[in-house]
Amino acid sequence: MTDETNKTTGARARLSRRGLLIGAAGSAAAAAALPGAARAAGMAPGELNPDLSYPFYGAAGQAGVMTPPQRYVFFMTFDLTTDRRRDLQVLLARWSGAIAQLMKGETIGQVEPSRPDAVGFDTGEALSLGACGLTVTVGLGPRVFTGTYELAERKPALLRALQRLPSDALRPELTGGDLSLQACADDPQVAYHAVRDLARIAKETGAAVTRWTVMGFGRASAGKGQATPRNLLGFKDGTRNIREAGEFDRHVWLNEGPAWQRGGTFQVVRKIQMHIENWDTDRVSDQNAVFGRHKLSGAPLTGKAEFDTPDFAMKKPDGAPVIPDNAHIRLAAHENNGGIKILRRSFNYTDGINQYGLLDAGLLFISYQTDPAHFEALQQKLGAADALNEYIAHIGSGLFFVPPAPREGSYIAEGMFAT
Amino acid sequence: MTDETNKTTGARARLSRRGLLIGAAGSAAAAAALPGAARAAGMAPGELNPDLSYPFYGAAGQAGVMTPPQRYVFFMTFDLTTDRRRDLQVLLARWSGAIAQLMKGETIGQVEPSRPDAVGFDTGEALSLGACGLTVTVGLGPRVFTGTYELAERKPALLRALQRLPSDALRPELTGGDLSLQACADDPQVAYHAVRDLARIAKETGAAVTRWTVMGFGRASAGKGQATPRNLLGFKDGTRNIREAGEFDRHVWLNEGPAWQRGGTFQVVRKIQMHIENWDTDRVSDQNAVFGRHKLSGAPLTGKAEFDTPDFAMKKPDGAPVIPDNAHIRLAAHENNGGIKILRRSFNYTDGINQYGLLDAGLLFISYQTDPAHFEALQQKLGAADALNEYIAHIGSGLFFVPPAPREGSYIAEGMFAT
Repeated sequence: MTDETNKTTGARARLSRRGLLIGAAGSAAAAAALPGAARAAGMAPGELNPDLSYPFYGAAGQAGVMTPPQRYVFFMTFDLTTDRRRDLQVLLARWSGAIAQLMKGETIGQVEPSRPDAVGFDTGEALSLGACGLTVTVGLGPRVFTGTYELAERKPALLRALQRLPSDALRPELTGGDLSLQACADDPQVAYHAVRDLARIAKETGAAVTRWTVMGFGRASAGKGQATPRNLLGFKDGTRNIREAGEFDRHVWLNEGPAWQRGGTFQVVRKIQMHIENWDTDRVSDQNAVFGRHKLSGAPLTGKAEFDTPDFAMKKPDGAPVIPDNAHIRLAAHENNGGIKILRRSFNYTDGINQYGLLDAGLLFISYQTDPAHFEALQQKLGAADALNEYIAHIGSGLFFVPPAPREGSYIAEGMFAT
Repeated sequence: MTDETNKTTGARARLSRRGLLIGAAGSAAAAAALPGAARAAGMAPGELNPDLSYPFYGAAGQAGVMTPPQRYVFFMTFDLTTDRRRDLQVLLARWSGAIAQLMKGETIGQVEPSRPDAVGFDTGEALSLGACGLTVTVGLGPRVFTGTYELAERKPALLRALQRLPSDALRPELTGGDLSLQACADDPQVAYHAVRDLARIAKETGAAVTRWTVMGFGRASAGKGQATPRNLLGFKDGTRNIREAGEFDRHVWLNEGPAWQRGGTFQVVRKIQMHIENWDTDRVSDQNAVFGRHKLSGAPLTGKAEFDTPDFAMKKPDGAPVIPDNAHIRLAAHENNGGIKILRRSFNYTDGINQYGLLDAGLLFISYQTDPAHFEALQQKLGAADALNEYIAHIGSGLFFVPPAPREGSYIAEGMFAT
């Protein structure tokens, strides 16, 4: 870690160069570069390497979307508190400069400044922990694109508030937000430090204040060959997730619209409470029917191994489908949803014990897709019919546009401000 | 992991053998065996080994006290809801059998039972994650030792409610408890799974319900040579902690009293909220004066390197002490407290954002000592004078007697029930 210089002012200076370095983004080749970088770093799934770092600057999507999921997330949203366009610009520029340093495992300036009466630029708790695979992904909520910031005409065509969905039990204090930060790392202290110091910058600029946050965990341990982590219902989660670069291009990255949006994506976040104590009293045969999979192996009820393709047509001798009509994997499957696929990047969370003395836990569901309507279509169906609904409640929600990664010398969404 | 048999009934069956296998515990040689086992397992500080496991049964103190601190903790307390002595016995016996399995990285019975209409014995979310260094340490609160359970006469001589201490800001919902579980592991899902399934056993027996809980993190990442983790004030925490086996014998393990208490210890738990946003606005020179150490290096203000012994007599040219009179390390030092030392085993925590929009975080302070009065003596002094008090509040508290580890074939505190 370097602790010699305060580099956070660099991004601010670059404001005058806006527009200069915004290039085309979102091509298949560029989008595929990110997991390539991870492979080049020699990272095996689940391996813990404190020196693993991903580039912040690039020609395609932001890190933290295609990046192999890290072990921890701190997700935080912010409300804008300024009505000045320039404050928003300064915040995004300062965040960009700081994130670039954090993702390299550096501090964002001196922890113990040489001038004795100075306040530390960096709070210091991640000193010498390494980058630990940190990615910080920045999202812009609908209220960014309003006349207040002269950005109404820059609004991505598909961005708007999420529809009200069946089985929504949203709490206002866990919903919405004008900006989002998804900080993921293999060490929770590294992820927390990033969000904390970025929140501090937001406060200093006067542009934004914290709104809601969730800390998540869930990556499997190293060396045991478990590719698919389990959620707190005990089931593998993510078996049929998007994995191939071509699928990312079709289902995740925007390939049209203004240049500054290409390589972007839409981030949907849901805080899903799970009633795990009720779940734990259910028979496992019922739990398997709820998911349409075997708890132990993760295999679909029609197969033997986790990655066997579910056979939604297979019937039992009595004519009933082997995978029930209201099973989670049937309702969510792309085969039954006109080919819709979304990238899920979820983490488990716990909030301790609730007011009834029950364990309070669940899933921080994060998905990325080319259109928020894709999430809505799936959730319309799941919320109305999913056998899982008895055991879960969607209590928090957010929708954000994630612009592409900035080129070096630029900052997040700089092209959005171009006049 | 084995998933073939339900072994949780084993410990219950062993109830009839109580007293048989309780041996002497707490000798220096026996107490020193635990860190020896860790060394034998080839574990370097910070290394992540999913197969690392510690023995639950033994002839000395419970695991989770001398054990090198793992990366995560789930600490949970319980209220007893039964007035039957036998229910308490059954709970401690079932907990013991389950903990022995969990610490080996096993499930506590089948996740997906072969009988199709059965409920799973184990909730399954830690399947194939390995033991990850799991330790579960069981504590007994003051209310265990009452006439209700015919245990009033078995009360450890030094166990009682903690005194009211200066600067206490205790919240009833985060304070007290009749039983405690400290589950530590290098994977949070392993630690959470242990506490969850043990809470489920408590519920099944009808003997106890959950009271309060804290999830903590804080172990430094592997391979970066950081021996001392940092707290969320950015300072190294634990530089002068107890490390030698001889110190454990003098300051941590009980060496007198009835046989079933020897090798035991007293566990003090404090949830300490830190006002980190206020702290972050303070000059680092002030922060250094508050601790009496340099933030970056961890060296005492009178020295150059972290492990230099503080010189409490050293004066500045103007006659003022180099380490201020109200500096944390001066007030807490054994040199200034009649030789008192306590073992600290603390973790950072975050509760997200508080009602004022400020980051809500702090330290789950856990200490082990031969006498709760040792903690009280230090905290009397710190609470009254510590310069740190402006930035912290003790909001939760608990005191528990931690009996020695059971011998194989026995269970936690079996000797306490001997008639």
